[in-house]
Amino acid sequence: MPVTVPVTGSSTYWCEHAWLPGGVASGVRIDVADGRITVVSTGQPRTGSVREGLTLPGLANVHSHAFHRALRGRTHHDRGTFWTWRERMYALAERLDPDSYYRLARGVYGEMVLAGYTSVAEFHYLHHAAGGTPYADPHAMSAALVAAADDAGIRLCLLDTCYLAGGFDVELRGVQPRFGDGTAEAWAERVTGFSPRADHVVLGAAVHSVRAVPERALSVVAECANGRPLHVHLSEQRAENEDSVRALGRTPTRVLDDNGVLGPNTTAVHATHLTNGDMSTLARSRTRACFCPTTERDLGDGIGPATSLAERGVRLCLGSDSHAVIDPFEETRALELNDRLAAEARGRFAVDELLAAATAHDALGMPDAGRLEPGARADLVTVDLRSPRTAGIEADGVFFAAGAADVTDLLVAGRAIVRDRQHRLIERPHAVLTDEIERLWRS
Amino acid sequence: MPVTVPVTGSSTYWCEHAWLPGGVASGVRIDVADGRITVVSTGQPRTGSVREGLTLPGLANVHSHAFHRALRGRTHHDRGTFWTWRERMYALAERLDPDSYYRLARGVYGEMVLAGYTSVAEFHYLHHAAGGTPYADPHAMSAALVAAADDAGIRLCLLDTCYLAGGFDVELRGVQPRFGDGTAEAWAERVTGFSPRADHVVLGAAVHSVRAVPERALSVVAECANGRPLHVHLSEQRAENEDSVRALGRTPTRVLDDNGVLGPNTTAVHATHLTNGDMSTLARSRTRACFCPTTERDLGDGIGPATSLAERGVRLCLGSDSHAVIDPFEETRALELNDRLAAEARGRFAVDELLAAATAHDALGMPDAGRLEPGARADLVTVDLRSPRTAGIEADGVFFAAGAADVTDLLVAGRAIVRDRQHRLIERPHAVLTDEIERLWRS
Repeated sequence: MPVTVPVTGSSTYWCEHAWLPGGVASGVRIDVADGRITVVSTGQPRTGSVREGLTLPGLANVHSHAFHRALRGRTHHDRGTFWTWRERMYALAERLDPDSYYRLARGVYGEMVLAGYTSVAEFHYLHHAAGGTPYADPHAMSAALVAAADDAGIRLCLLDTCYLAGGFDVELRGVQPRFGDGTAEAWAERVTGFSPRADHVVLGAAVHSVRAVPERALSVVAECANGRPLHVHLSEQRAENEDSVRALGRTPTRVLDDNGVLGPNTTAVHATHLTNGDMSTLARSRTRACFCPTTERDLGDGIGPATSLAERGVRLCLGSDSHAVIDPFEETRALELNDRLAAEARGRFAVDELLAAATAHDALGMPDAGRLEPGARADLVTVDLRSPRTAGIEADGVFFAAGAADVTDLLVAGRAIVRDRQHRLIERPHAVLTDEIERLWRS
Repeated sequence: MPVTVPVTGSSTYWCEHAWLPGGVASGVRIDVADGRITVVSTGQPRTGSVREGLTLPGLANVHSHAFHRALRGRTHHDRGTFWTWRERMYALAERLDPDSYYRLARGVYGEMVLAGYTSVAEFHYLHHAAGGTPYADPHAMSAALVAAADDAGIRLCLLDTCYLAGGFDVELRGVQPRFGDGTAEAWAERVTGFSPRADHVVLGAAVHSVRAVPERALSVVAECANGRPLHVHLSEQRAENEDSVRALGRTPTRVLDDNGVLGPNTTAVHATHLTNGDMSTLARSRTRACFCPTTERDLGDGIGPATSLAERGVRLCLGSDSHAVIDPFEETRALELNDRLAAEARGRFAVDELLAAATAHDALGMPDAGRLEPGARADLVTVDLRSPRTAGIEADGVFFAAGAADVTDLLVAGRAIVRDRQHRLIERPHAVLTDEIERLWRS
């Protein structure tokens, strides 16, 4: 049963262990007022609301296509090639409307919160009704996502995505007109008209990819973003690079750089197949890279150059993307472990580097979230250290052992959204998901 | 609180869905008597003990070093190289005795059962007291493992491992004398003397590796195995191959084949770095390959040639090995998903091929387990299909979505070992693990 929880007011939490900027400390008292942390002190006696286990800062899901959740465990027919996946993804996109998307996203964001995510960047491209006709409210789909995030108690960075073409010199076809606005200028006009009144929402923009946004339109998107978060799918598969070089004579990274898309507010999603020159360009422009390891393995994209990017100073972050898996612990350890598979060596990142990737809120335009320190947003994620999975570990080894099922408690802006493994705002998000996904595939 | 459950007697189970040899069926009635399935019928009305969700055949963990569980979440210091891991693994081996190993293994096997494993092959090499001195009962360590498995209600294939050298022409050193018996003949004599009276135990043998068993000793082990399960670590890392070629002029696979170690009762564990000739040799000799994907990524071993082996007819099975992760669903999907990462393509195995790998009991000398059909052992694993992770999936997509936390009920030989996610024979195996692992690292 949903319950009312106070947004403001002050509280005190006592954490058995908490991962502070300097490392894991014990007996940590965290005072919270009006949604922000006011005081953090260590070695304190038990007081206030007790949090057994390890309390982490808020975890950021930097790349989400919420509706892909309805594909989980449904794309393995005939062994499940890439084409099985894409055919089902398009079939799903065809069926959604603002009402059903709201219901589905509400369940998905509820699952994210139960798993430990306190914020999500939604890379949103399903804008219009069939054939590309705008809804009566042209922001109906965006509003559905904002409402879903609000219901689920998760922070949302809504990235309104420009998607104009079906490939290099290929028009939108099939369901794709639902994604398009005709021109970048029309996209920008629509985007500018949306300003939801919601405390936990940041608005940003996205270039779907160099395949889907013609080169002449890239600078329009970059200018419209104007300092807000700007995301772009980059070099997820080798074919994109080959097509880009064939059509435009340059790698996707070069094309984006030539048109002002890269920079300190930009996040390149995937960044799987890069040349050395591409990596240097991302580093020089201070562009971030968002890896989506569980999706990149599901889609057979390959293993991205995580350590090579990090060595050049590129900041890394993480997203669950297609939601084949929603588990920030699995996503984070995969950053390290996939790199081990590629390098055939252990010891690629230190655990504080993994925590930094898991909590990177800059990419969402929320620079004051993701740290347990005074002044920061009071987003706290508590993990059971005595579950079958985590029993016997050292606290800062949590990313190698824990899973989504180990999150016991979670606060966003000082609100208790998860308590004792139960979502307090949505009764059983998984029941919502079951109902909505079965309804979608029946329709 | 441990409770007494009847070993014999007859029962009827009604499964919402069950994965039968022909695929997933609904409304499945499974009748059980004296530990075996007597009747399976589909499309039946609810009756007997109801199992909501999907019921799978028993899942086999074909490769385990139980004591490595105490390393989970504890080998990431200084980034955690291979040497960090090995140094800690040896430190741990040094501390164990029959009493502490019994307590630790009891918790580990309890965790396995909670995660859905109904049987385990223990690749056991920690035989003797410090310096290699036999215990008063020379089988004290083996007996500890048998007792632990019995307590946990899991079937055990105990692979007594021959371990004679620290490398090619290198003596045992440090803690390693605890693993050794001096000669293969002495190993065989000790092995032959052990015959526990335990219903759920199969005895087998293992060659640690071509590094640890000199070539002249290999045939002694193979002869001693004499048709029982025989396992061997094979080509986990490239260095083993290079050392083998340098020392013996042949790949490890060739060395094993030349000495009668390969064959239909043999399981090659890892099989990560193989030549085409090696793969043909495994196929021709009808040797199985046991992949341990979550360990192979943890140790940076690399991605083994799963599809190449399968195409040649080599039967695949799976193990959790070092127990960095104990989750048969994660292990099984990683067989598919790591192959996608290597191939940069989806659709490597069909779901029934994944099920076959997850349930392969031949490698444990238990050919009548791992299938839901009349005459088979009554090992049943029921998975929640409406958890946050599994909500909305198709039942046969379970290996892509479920996790250890989704196992609700589990029977071994008709005994209910897990009920409503609780172990019925060990109260909270994770509490056992926490206590024992903390004690071991303190000592």
